[in-house]
Amino acid sequence: MSEYVPGLEGVVAAQTEISLVDGANGQLVYRGYVIADLAQEMSFEEVAHLFWYGRLPTRAELDGLAAQLSESRGLSDAASTALDALPKDADPMDVLRSIVSVQGVRHKLEKPALEQALHATASFPTVLAHFQRRRHGLEPVKPRADLGHAANYLYMLNGKESTPELVRALNTYLVLLADHGMNASTFTARVIASTDSDMASCLVGAIGALKGPAHGGAPSAVLEQLEQIGTADNAERWMREARKRKERFMGFGHRVYRTYDPRARILKELCARLNPKFYELASKVEADFKAAWERLLARTSPEELAAAYKAMNIRDED
Amino acid sequence: MSEYVPGLEGVVAAQTEISLVDGANGQLVYRGYVIADLAQEMSFEEVAHLFWYGRLPTRAELDGLAAQLSESRGLSDAASTALDALPKDADPMDVLRSIVSVQGVRHKLEKPALEQALHATASFPTVLAHFQRRRHGLEPVKPRADLGHAANYLYMLNGKESTPELVRALNTYLVLLADHGMNASTFTARVIASTDSDMASCLVGAIGALKGPAHGGAPSAVLEQLEQIGTADNAERWMREARKRKERFMGFGHRVYRTYDPRARILKELCARLNPKFYELASKVEADFKAAWERLLARTSPEELAAAYKAMNIRDED
Repeated sequence: MSEYVPGLEGVVAAQTEISLVDGANGQLVYRGYVIADLAQEMSFEEVAHLFWYGRLPTRAELDGLAAQLSESRGLSDAASTALDALPKDADPMDVLRSIVSVQGVRHKLEKPALEQALHATASFPTVLAHFQRRRHGLEPVKPRADLGHAANYLYMLNGKESTPELVRALNTYLVLLADHGMNASTFTARVIASTDSDMASCLVGAIGALKGPAHGGAPSAVLEQLEQIGTADNAERWMREARKRKERFMGFGHRVYRTYDPRARILKELCARLNPKFYELASKVEADFKAAWERLLARTSPEELAAAYKAMNIRDED
Repeated sequence: MSEYVPGLEGVVAAQTEISLVDGANGQLVYRGYVIADLAQEMSFEEVAHLFWYGRLPTRAELDGLAAQLSESRGLSDAASTALDALPKDADPMDVLRSIVSVQGVRHKLEKPALEQALHATASFPTVLAHFQRRRHGLEPVKPRADLGHAANYLYMLNGKESTPELVRALNTYLVLLADHGMNASTFTARVIASTDSDMASCLVGAIGALKGPAHGGAPSAVLEQLEQIGTADNAERWMREARKRKERFMGFGHRVYRTYDPRARILKELCARLNPKFYELASKVEADFKAAWERLLARTSPEELAAAYKAMNIRDED
């Protein structure tokens, strides 16, 4: 299957059996499994096994992988020291980029291998939880080997176990975001790998790309706008004013999905259950935006539409 | 002008007026200036101005840029602490990747701008000199504002001023390596920039790509092989044995330059002056390799040649 590569539309840059982003039909497929079937059933560890070994694990294989991951959650002394030295107001993506780089120093120029991917995957939540606690003046919480990937992340963030419902929700989120074909961050990692560089170099470049507001940074920008809007009642007024300021509306339209993003459909359900108030706000903004957009479409010629698109500063995100 | 992009031969990925790598004619051109004319005349600062502002500086502009660079050589507290925490046997490219990342944390998601490029350029030598001294158990040497980019780097490495000849040689090296068109590291930086990410993310990804032995890591691998060979007398025997071990000979052939690499021609002259013994060794290895290659060519059909190419494990470097 061919994948979209930034700036090279229509050029086949790679073939992969790992994941299929079927934009026309609004489907995301991991190794032949439609994401909607996996996201609420499988643990993050099972999906990691699916990606790394090409098939779902047996019970014994799953236990083995879970044990390997839980043993690899610690940070090196250098990584811990560097993390503690970072300013408290740092962007968490910069923290991750820096600490994954420091943590990777021990592997030097080793050929990228599964073991290093496993170590990195296991330690990402430790980096982020450690930093999140630090910037709130709290002591870091050591990972707990008896908890799964999602449960342990929440435990390290909050210093106590979370409800099964919250663990399941985070697990679903992690499964939904585990792979997304040849997007800009994966493409970055592959360009770096093409020079025979090491795993940490690939990951650090990918994190740098993922940080961008036109890529993985888009959801944070959406959250910020929703926080500014504040309440569902305020949505219409805010959007009118934002349009006057020619501000970009984040979160509308997708470069690849021409129908609805299949990940958003599942995350919406989760949000409705876990945070009804926030769900109401986000749904109202989405409905208002859609209505405004349809009113605009109804009274606009194709030429005017192109100009309006530009003026509204709508941009596709990945 | 179109440039070579890894894996996409023949596809025009970008146009640039910055530098032209003319492989067919063995020429490297910066903003219209042939590199051979610049490398031994211009300071690194003048060439930086040429790249950043599109033209060579006036005297006042050059003084201004030199002052800005020399004021930006310091490391942030976080960067210094992280650097001191790294293991002494770390790969200097991993050190640079990590510390540029930490140093960049203060810029968060600012739009990449010249000022940040200038800060990063100024601080690279500080990172490397600081680490080089640390791993030899020496105190770091503070940068000296009255010295130029090349002279100050040597001063921070050695704790004393170097001879004008050595400063000039390093300056020539820095000028020759200042840009090389759309190679893998530049391409990485541009992919990251395409997501609207920040300058440090672009640089960190580029450093990760540059580390690879099929890119910027190639010269280090050549040096290691020359160290193994030891003396010019030993070259033929070593190469025969290395060929039996099917080891890759580093430093022969280039993906883009089909004639002689114009940078190598100038660096060879410098090496002959500054380190005649090493020059003798490297020249002997080059001559022996060339002779062996020509003998092989003379007795080989095109089909055999393709197989021999594979068996000798010769690979193109950038």
